[in-house]
Amino acid sequence: MKKYNQIAGSLLLKIREKKPLIHHITNMVVMNDTANVTLHFGALPVMAHSRDEVTEMTAMAGALVLNIGTLTKELIGTMMKAGKQANKLNIPIIVDPVGSGATDLRTQASLKLLKGLKIAVLRGNSGEIGSLIGAGGKVKGVESVEGVKNPGMVVQTAATKFKTVVIVTGKRDYLSDGKRNLIIDNGHQLLATNTGTGCMATTAIACFCAVEPDCLIASAAALACYGLAAEKAAKKSVSPASFKVALLDNIYNLDAKDVIKGARIKEING
Amino acid sequence: MKKYNQIAGSLLLKIREKKPLIHHITNMVVMNDTANVTLHFGALPVMAHSRDEVTEMTAMAGALVLNIGTLTKELIGTMMKAGKQANKLNIPIIVDPVGSGATDLRTQASLKLLKGLKIAVLRGNSGEIGSLIGAGGKVKGVESVEGVKNPGMVVQTAATKFKTVVIVTGKRDYLSDGKRNLIIDNGHQLLATNTGTGCMATTAIACFCAVEPDCLIASAAALACYGLAAEKAAKKSVSPASFKVALLDNIYNLDAKDVIKGARIKEING
Amino acid sequence: MKKYNQIAGSLLLKIREKKPLIHHITNMVVMNDTANVTLHFGALPVMAHSRDEVTEMTAMAGALVLNIGTLTKELIGTMMKAGKQANKLNIPIIVDPVGSGATDLRTQASLKLLKGLKIAVLRGNSGEIGSLIGAGGKVKGVESVEGVKNPGMVVQTAATKFKTVVIVTGKRDYLSDGKRNLIIDNGHQLLATNTGTGCMATTAIACFCAVEPDCLIASAAALACYGLAAEKAAKKSVSPASFKVALLDNIYNLDAKDVIKGARIKEING
Repeated sequence: MKKYNQIAGSLLLKIREKKPLIHHITNMVVMNDTANVTLHFGALPVMAHSRDEVTEMTAMAGALVLNIGTLTKELIGTMMKAGKQANKLNIPIIVDPVGSGATDLRTQASLKLLKGLKIAVLRGNSGEIGSLIGAGGKVKGVESVEGVKNPGMVVQTAATKFKTVVIVTGKRDYLSDGKRNLIIDNGHQLLATNTGTGCMATTAIACFCAVEPDCLIASAAALACYGLAAEKAAKKSVSPASFKVALLDNIYNLDAKDVIKGARIKEING
Repeated sequence: MKKYNQIAGSLLLKIREKKPLIHHITNMVVMNDTANVTLHFGALPVMAHSRDEVTEMTAMAGALVLNIGTLTKELIGTMMKAGKQANKLNIPIIVDPVGSGATDLRTQASLKLLKGLKIAVLRGNSGEIGSLIGAGGKVKGVESVEGVKNPGMVVQTAATKFKTVVIVTGKRDYLSDGKRNLIIDNGHQLLATNTGTGCMATTAIACFCAVEPDCLIASAAALACYGLAAEKAAKKSVSPASFKVALLDNIYNLDAKDVIKGARIKEING
Repeated sequence: MKKYNQIAGSLLLKIREKKPLIHHITNMVVMNDTANVTLHFGALPVMAHSRDEVTEMTAMAGALVLNIGTLTKELIGTMMKAGKQANKLNIPIIVDPVGSGATDLRTQASLKLLKGLKIAVLRGNSGEIGSLIGAGGKVKGVESVEGVKNPGMVVQTAATKFKTVVIVTGKRDYLSDGKRNLIIDNGHQLLATNTGTGCMATTAIACFCAVEPDCLIASAAALACYGLAAEKAAKKSVSPASFKVALLDNIYNLDAKDVIKGARIKEING
């Protein structure tokens, strides 16, 4: 809807003006890409995972990303420590439960973060989010190989349960804060041909949440912008690696006018 | 030979149909590329190295990659744990002894994996494989700066000693299971201008071993396909970074017909 | 000046002839890029951070890079161990104090390396170097968001204090060994749109210091070459990800003639 598009365009400009720091405690596979996505949206990335500095680093941040893609038990403790600092300072925390549902370590770690911290946004694929509320879906490694039946319902249920914005991304993105429900139809199937494009979506959300306290709106804006960049990239290349280069280029080159015109955000009934 | 080309083409289709999970315990330098190579061949990657989840993760996998590129002592233990699970479930293990011969830690770790586990394929450069059977060659960091004199003989000897398929990749690739000996002449010299192209070859082998129990044949198919994608990439660019983008694109775009026509696999006498 | 350009061209050829090993103990975000930069300049990269092998690995190296971008306390110990070996064998150590000034862990670790080891070159952004001598500047995450007032003076003061070559890179690069002062005007603003371009500059410096004992001259040559490759890349693309691909390609394709013609190195008064 038109009002969301206007907001999305404004938030993009706001990131570029304020340049918030996005503190990532994240996986080693996609670190370089998520750092670049942060920069290209206009924010500043830092990847810092030492117990001995996260308290200080988080204090400088506009948002904190907790991504469990290459999790260890030690890292869960560090994430909790950083998360407590973020909660204390009202810094939004964005959780990416990579591979939740595939192993007990990942499912339990995600639930621990959701229960022990005040989380602003939880974003995963269909199987990951399904695994966290026992709604079905199947995760093989980090990939959702079987989605939940009704993602719109699942995000709303999970949002109510976890008292946070919950998002399932995929061909269509579903967002809910338990009361308001949105869908986003930006994006391109080539995103699925590259590793870490879900992690990049999470990073995009963090950039927008750093400048807009209503995290449902901020997340919708982020996913519309990210998806729009993917659509533009697909016009440049239909092969995965050159598509990824074009995706990053188009995030950087995205302007508010593109967003106002191209964002496809809709309200739906829960 | 023609029969290998037919098989290589069929196996490529089989990966794309079955989408096996390839569990990597691997180095941090090339993780993003090896994950993407896995996806582009049609399989699903997961990079998971926590002691607390490898047993569960390996159980889901079609193949397990153990790559010692950024090894620590702790990681050797995790590799052994995952490897035992793989052996129990008859999941093929592919070992990449990165930098073996350069430091004692790496040489001993490689030998430990080879002795303590049933390994399906061991792939390295000339110096790395040479170091493991005392056949000469010299490794500087992770690079073979002096190859073994007779790689065809070395792979056969190593295959007999370690009871596994052994592969030395380079300008020409040498493969042996101790009885059968193959060479592959696909590939391009630009591969050597990028870091991790050996690791990517190992990942390719794992994707093919996940769908074909005869790991000598599977490895030959993998290296022919990978080398063929490199040949196609070199037609697109002769500079390293744009060549790498084209290499990844061409892995994704490879089809069975290309492989049947372009694979250069030959049997030789040991 | 013309003599520096001649030297820079010669050193580039010398790297390609000698292929020195550059041992990196470095951050996980930019590892792949710094490994490729090393290869493209003509040297051999190795990323090895296990306490159990750094002594052996460093002994093979032409230069040692200590980059604290994703630091842990444990890693500081490993860096000290490798550094002591490098000092013993007269191997130049290049320190990149990523994020110094942002957290106490990073500032103190940088100072520990500078005090406990004989460092050949210290390279950072304006805020990082400023933080190490109390000269002002401000670091947000790993980014200098407020530079020091007089970078020419700051590098000279720091060089005298730490008895090493000190470099602040930015739009203009400032180098000093406490007595001689140089500035370099190669480079391009698009470098700032990608993560890790400072780390890559540090790696470039290490490649040149591995073949030239006068580390001030070597560093000037490195930064001129790196900056020149960036200028050429910007002619290929003005978007960040495709610019990065072009940057890496142009490092590889750089020849001595380009350098002799295009390097912009100047002596200044301290």
